Amino acid sequence: MSRFGIENLPYGVFSQPNERRRLGVRLGSSVVDLSLLGGLLDHQTLNPLMAAGPAMWTESRERVVEHVAAGADRIPLSEVTLHLPFEVADYTDFYSSEQHALNVSAILRPDSPGLPEHWRHLPIGYHGRSSTVVVSGTPIRRPSGQLGPGVFGPSRRLDIEAEVGFVVGVGGRRIGTGDFAEHVFGVTLVNDWSARDIQAWEYRPLGPFLAKSFATSMSPWVVPLSALAGVDSPPQDPEPLDYLRPAGPAYDLRLSVEWNDTRVSSPPFRSMYWTAAQQLAHLTSNGASVRTGDLYASGTVSGDRRDEVGSFLELTRNGQEPVKLTDGSVRGFLEDGDKITISGTTIGAAGVEIGLGEVTGTILP
Amino acid sequence: MSRFGIENLPYGVFSQPNERRRLGVRLGSSVVDLSLLGGLLDHQTLNPLMAAGPAMWTESRERVVEHVAAGADRIPLSEVTLHLPFEVADYTDFYSSEQHALNVSAILRPDSPGLPEHWRHLPIGYHGRSSTVVVSGTPIRRPSGQLGPGVFGPSRRLDIEAEVGFVVGVGGRRIGTGDFAEHVFGVTLVNDWSARDIQAWEYRPLGPFLAKSFATSMSPWVVPLSALAGVDSPPQDPEPLDYLRPAGPAYDLRLSVEWNDTRVSSPPFRSMYWTAAQQLAHLTSNGASVRTGDLYASGTVSGDRRDEVGSFLELTRNGQEPVKLTDGSVRGFLEDGDKITISGTTIGAAGVEIGLGEVTGTILP
Repeated sequence: MSRFGIENLPYGVFSQPNERRRLGVRLGSSVVDLSLLGGLLDHQTLNPLMAAGPAMWTESRERVVEHVAAGADRIPLSEVTLHLPFEVADYTDFYSSEQHALNVSAILRPDSPGLPEHWRHLPIGYHGRSSTVVVSGTPIRRPSGQLGPGVFGPSRRLDIEAEVGFVVGVGGRRIGTGDFAEHVFGVTLVNDWSARDIQAWEYRPLGPFLAKSFATSMSPWVVPLSALAGVDSPPQDPEPLDYLRPAGPAYDLRLSVEWNDTRVSSPPFRSMYWTAAQQLAHLTSNGASVRTGDLYASGTVSGDRRDEVGSFLELTRNGQEPVKLTDGSVRGFLEDGDKITISGTTIGAAGVEIGLGEVTGTILP
Repeated sequence: MSRFGIENLPYGVFSQPNERRRLGVRLGSSVVDLSLLGGLLDHQTLNPLMAAGPAMWTESRERVVEHVAAGADRIPLSEVTLHLPFEVADYTDFYSSEQHALNVSAILRPDSPGLPEHWRHLPIGYHGRSSTVVVSGTPIRRPSGQLGPGVFGPSRRLDIEAEVGFVVGVGGRRIGTGDFAEHVFGVTLVNDWSARDIQAWEYRPLGPFLAKSFATSMSPWVVPLSALAGVDSPPQDPEPLDYLRPAGPAYDLRLSVEWNDTRVSSPPFRSMYWTAAQQLAHLTSNGASVRTGDLYASGTVSGDRRDEVGSFLELTRNGQEPVKLTDGSVRGFLEDGDKITISGTTIGAAGVEIGLGEVTGTILP
């Protein structure tokens, strides 16, 4: 059974040799060309549709469903090139999995384990580099950097972070949690590649910089928010401040991380402490504006169990407890030639399982 | 004597009522319309000229100088609106004044004063929000945010950071310090507004986020790099790693900070530890790309003396030692209605003093 049936239809941007980029939706292992539908659906990026707002999102989706249901032509995915689906404006990344924050703290700061004092009061985040957000499949060149005093060279502790990205359609300031669906167009999968050795040496006091700025990969598919089913958000203690209430929906997205074709982890997005609506409310609470094309990521998704973590820092305890892949090889961190695939599924709004696409990347020396 | 003579001619974008935006250069207290010159000079932002590279920068500047020398029409600045001169791609901010870093450390982290261990090994930086970079004169609404556990409200410790911004014309990766002038189009003045109370509560471990994302002001004028005179860069100990050598030029820019028309500080840019060439080399050393329109700021410029610091955190020792303005009022941090003006001058490449423009902002409640 395809997880990319008519209940899903994520948006993307594709091209065929010597032709311009066009909008499409994924149907099974094909893409349906939307340019024929004209208007907001006849562009080279999703930005114009994203900017048009929820009423147009609904209308466009109805037209797309009708078009697909009427037996639209399909182009096999093998015959197209997939591109970044929208122009990324600002890229922001959060840190909203409690289990991830606890794991990182215990591994990297064993002298002061536990959550930072403010962690349960606000969704901690930082800004990343938008020029290096790349589409799934783009090879990832191992970054070089300072690994300690007087040492410059290729990162030896190259890691992944399995995350869910939220795509801002309609910009704004001071966006209440209840207005989340008026602003967010859809979700995508994100791999926030991280060089742990660069990070450890550089990050105080202004946060990660070159450890993450070399590349962030995203799925070519943006699943419309309306295709997803919200579920109850997790309990929060202490009670969040007014501007972070109500929490808004959680989403029961089940991620999967494959390391050279061995599934090593199944991070449960439902376990995230802060919701995407709270992240957006926090991001704009100081008066800052978000714009069409802003991408904000959830932060690494980690569950309680070792086979539910979203980074290899956690999976291998900073390389100290390597994992064995099905081909017999043993890994602490990423080696050259390694291929990582993050995928995801959920029970969608129509009650059937839908796919969230996948984000892959192979490490070049 | 005007500091905006033919030796300077900084670029900007202006408009007159009911007319489109045009490129111009500042001449005295007038602007000269460049749209008549056509080509790269007939656009609504500087981005196309910036992207065209150093040969075209030289050629365009020659044409502009010729046009001005021939007695081009001048439009008084009082009759035009000045706009953000280019579309900002990624915004990055450094932390490269040793005196500022020492002051901040002593004030905010008295239990562990001094520079972070890596401070003299690499130019520490972070990414900021590009959607909130605004042109000089834009009113700055006091940000709200979490000021501590369970407390949300307007910032009570709103501050400035007087900085110099570098504008990337030609993008690239792994840009050596010797290629600085091939990529950087010019310089501008930046005020990186900062809410110290929000920052203190939020910044661990991922760095400043909402404390700075609400607004960053920049001068409407971009002084071409070729109008500036490089001077010897300061000694560095330890010797920087190869990718940070040679250091590249320093610039003897003399900033001035006025608080409600009282000059409270004169930050000396020449005292910066890391050069702009080293900052760009570091930023791209991991393989990250910069693009046309990237703006990177030097970090707060602070000299040795109290009347040379670039933030009020330093000037008033975190509000503990308020300053008296010429109107008799006393200030620790910014109050509603306060107006800040940062300006600058330098001896330019032609050997005469030139102005760097100014960046102003008034605080709204």
